[in-house]
Amino acid sequence: MPNRYVAVCGDSDPGTPHRQAALDVGRLLAEAGCVVLCGGYGGVMEAASEGAAKAGGTVVGILPTSDREGANEYLTLSLPTGLGQARNAVLATAAEAVIAIGSAGWGTLSEIALARRLGRPVVGLQTWRLEGLETAGSPDEAVRRVLG
Amino acid sequence: MPNRYVAVCGDSDPGTPHRQAALDVGRLLAEAGCVVLCGGYGGVMEAASEGAAKAGGTVVGILPTSDREGANEYLTLSLPTGLGQARNAVLATAAEAVIAIGSAGWGTLSEIALARRLGRPVVGLQTWRLEGLETAGSPDEAVRRVLG
Amino acid sequence: MPNRYVAVCGDSDPGTPHRQAALDVGRLLAEAGCVVLCGGYGGVMEAASEGAAKAGGTVVGILPTSDREGANEYLTLSLPTGLGQARNAVLATAAEAVIAIGSAGWGTLSEIALARRLGRPVVGLQTWRLEGLETAGSPDEAVRRVLG
Amino acid sequence: MPNRYVAVCGDSDPGTPHRQAALDVGRLLAEAGCVVLCGGYGGVMEAASEGAAKAGGTVVGILPTSDREGANEYLTLSLPTGLGQARNAVLATAAEAVIAIGSAGWGTLSEIALARRLGRPVVGLQTWRLEGLETAGSPDEAVRRVLG
Repeated sequence: MPNRYVAVCGDSDPGTPHRQAALDVGRLLAEAGCVVLCGGYGGVMEAASEGAAKAGGTVVGILPTSDREGANEYLTLSLPTGLGQARNAVLATAAEAVIAIGSAGWGTLSEIALARRLGRPVVGLQTWRLEGLETAGSPDEAVRRVLG
Repeated sequence: MPNRYVAVCGDSDPGTPHRQAALDVGRLLAEAGCVVLCGGYGGVMEAASEGAAKAGGTVVGILPTSDREGANEYLTLSLPTGLGQARNAVLATAAEAVIAIGSAGWGTLSEIALARRLGRPVVGLQTWRLEGLETAGSPDEAVRRVLG
Repeated sequence: MPNRYVAVCGDSDPGTPHRQAALDVGRLLAEAGCVVLCGGYGGVMEAASEGAAKAGGTVVGILPTSDREGANEYLTLSLPTGLGQARNAVLATAAEAVIAIGSAGWGTLSEIALARRLGRPVVGLQTWRLEGLETAGSPDEAVRRVLG
Repeated sequence: MPNRYVAVCGDSDPGTPHRQAALDVGRLLAEAGCVVLCGGYGGVMEAASEGAAKAGGTVVGILPTSDREGANEYLTLSLPTGLGQARNAVLATAAEAVIAIGSAGWGTLSEIALARRLGRPVVGLQTWRLEGLETAGSPDEAVRRVLG
């Protein structure tokens, strides 16, 4: 299957307005048989994890710290890297495609940029508007696009 | 469960004399419910992956490259990091304990040292003899020790 | 001195239209006593290195590869990291402030985003227009701003 | 010049018994025109930095943290990486050769192993005894050997 590993990036704010979109993206990726990768924490990451886990999928959290503290409860596997923000490059490298959700953060932007730099397809949903960044109008469209 | 994530480190030589020990360690870890982490390639890594996978376990290969080429066929999940040898530090960080098998390599020694530096318990099996490194006489003993 | 270490980020295209701006930024930083950090290769990086070196400054190239091949000739010091794109996070971390020049690339965008994520001040010159990114109208203004 | 960049590795204990050896190694490397790389902190690292700096050499500290706190006062340049223990791989990669001093630590052992894994020559001085690790009887001999 093309793009079996798909990262979902977005802010960690528990009150994120993008929770429903992230839940849907996680669920749709899991239903399509994808492994969901994410940064492992709250907000968009947690919602995508919850969506994927409740649909029976596999979710891997790639953490910046050297322990598992603060990892969300929906992760199938959590992997502390100890790398700090360089973990964003690991996440972009491990992913075959990326869906970026929400506009709040520099961390999300770094993941978009690193993934594009590595030649990974990235689809944005309600996120940073950037020349050269493909966007989707709905979770369904975002998932269809990364699955090619 | 304590030490749910256990890394198995060892050389990538397909003709490694430690194949049987690695198969047994992988199988025993999977039977104990552990997630097996490894470098993802051949030799000791492949045998541990095979042992774990055939016992129904989960095996994650953390690769130094930015693609999945050369990853062994028994991995449940493969995660390219693009970090080169710094991936050894990620492997040691993601693991709650390490079993090091065989004496051929500097890579294995780096994983022992990084894991000990991070305070992770490490058990050696037919490997480098080092002051302060616990050793086991059999796969069974090694697994019992890391499970505490 | 505040912000002694300043990274200059930009594309590696030898025909970059931003060569003169980068030369000026490198020179002005060196004249102000800053250490210039960069990715170590051509284009904007080389021009900033040349500007700093010819003004008697110190320039450090932080390379993604594990050898020094392709490093530009104006670097005082070259440091291969072997980290691939994760070197962008190291560059952003080592810098106390960043000047981003030119709009061609995802690599530059990742450095802007990682540096902002880490709380480093970033000033853009003829680069990506992003909400929350400070921009300058000239090399002189860019350098004045990062020096606070 | 071959092996212009030489890393000096060793424990950070301020009461290290290897202080004089590290001072001498730093001085001799600087006199030979080498750039000294180290982890940037106290103990052996600080003594090597002091020896090199007082001989007019250049010393670069490659730090595991994301700030410069705790860096020793003799560094010409300090570069925070934010990578935690993965900084040891960066140090080994940036070095063309390594001198390891003293036996106290797993961190030193990881740097020996990573450097050997990367094919860098390593000379040990009063350090871990390992099959395949070259050792020297004095600072002078250690420096002569890494300079080839």
